[in-house]
Amino acid sequence: MSLQSPTWSLHPQLETDTVMVGDLPLSRLLVSNDANYPWLVLVPRRPGASEIIDLEEADRARLMIEITMASRSLKAVTSCDKLNVAAIGNMVPQLHVHVIARRRGDPAWPKPVWGAVPPRDHEPTALANFIADLRRAVGL
Amino acid sequence: MSLQSPTWSLHPQLETDTVMVGDLPLSRLLVSNDANYPWLVLVPRRPGASEIIDLEEADRARLMIEITMASRSLKAVTSCDKLNVAAIGNMVPQLHVHVIARRRGDPAWPKPVWGAVPPRDHEPTALANFIADLRRAVGL
Repeated sequence: MSLQSPTWSLHPQLETDTVMVGDLPLSRLLVSNDANYPWLVLVPRRPGASEIIDLEEADRARLMIEITMASRSLKAVTSCDKLNVAAIGNMVPQLHVHVIARRRGDPAWPKPVWGAVPPRDHEPTALANFIADLRRAVGL
Repeated sequence: MSLQSPTWSLHPQLETDTVMVGDLPLSRLLVSNDANYPWLVLVPRRPGASEIIDLEEADRARLMIEITMASRSLKAVTSCDKLNVAAIGNMVPQLHVHVIARRRGDPAWPKPVWGAVPPRDHEPTALANFIADLRRAVGL
């Protein structure tokens, strides 16, 4: 039996908090279950990575490319006023990057979204349409 | 008179909220005046950039390299538990990336730092030593 590298799987908390959009070359692209804001999450499929600096150099470069793809797609789909891009990870240790579409007048504006107001459920058809639009925008 | 490209200058709010560490090839490296957390800010010296996606591709790649340099240096200097990396910019439109050293038990832990507790002034000698350590770590 050959030595296997550890397999990657999505952290259970991210599994609970998001729905799948698709896999980019490095990262799994997810949508947050909080409908207060159009909110994407990129999770590099690298076992054990907790910080951006835990990634290899080529993966960090790729992550910037995927942040750019996700940001442009989200901006195109939502016509938002501002993008918020953040790797926080104080609660969930698996490296994940938030890409959030902000609008003047959204429930947290101008503050960051975390903890600002209680999460709100998606309307299923709106969520399905949002994911379909995103998949097209991002080329999935 | 030849056509000049617009010159870059640091946004007045960032000028007020930070002190200078030095200039990396793309970004000005700053320390936040809030002593609650060891807190760096990278500001790409590109006039008019508000979002990461406003930068040219080569500058985005360079920004990832400088985020990595700042993150590694901050972690080496502080022995922090977690790094928080974020481009928010809802209040200050000039593109800036926060790189914050977090510790279990710091005043906002495990929440993001923005708005969590009132800012606290630096002790001048501690700040001077922190900046000297950072400059060494980052190679300035």
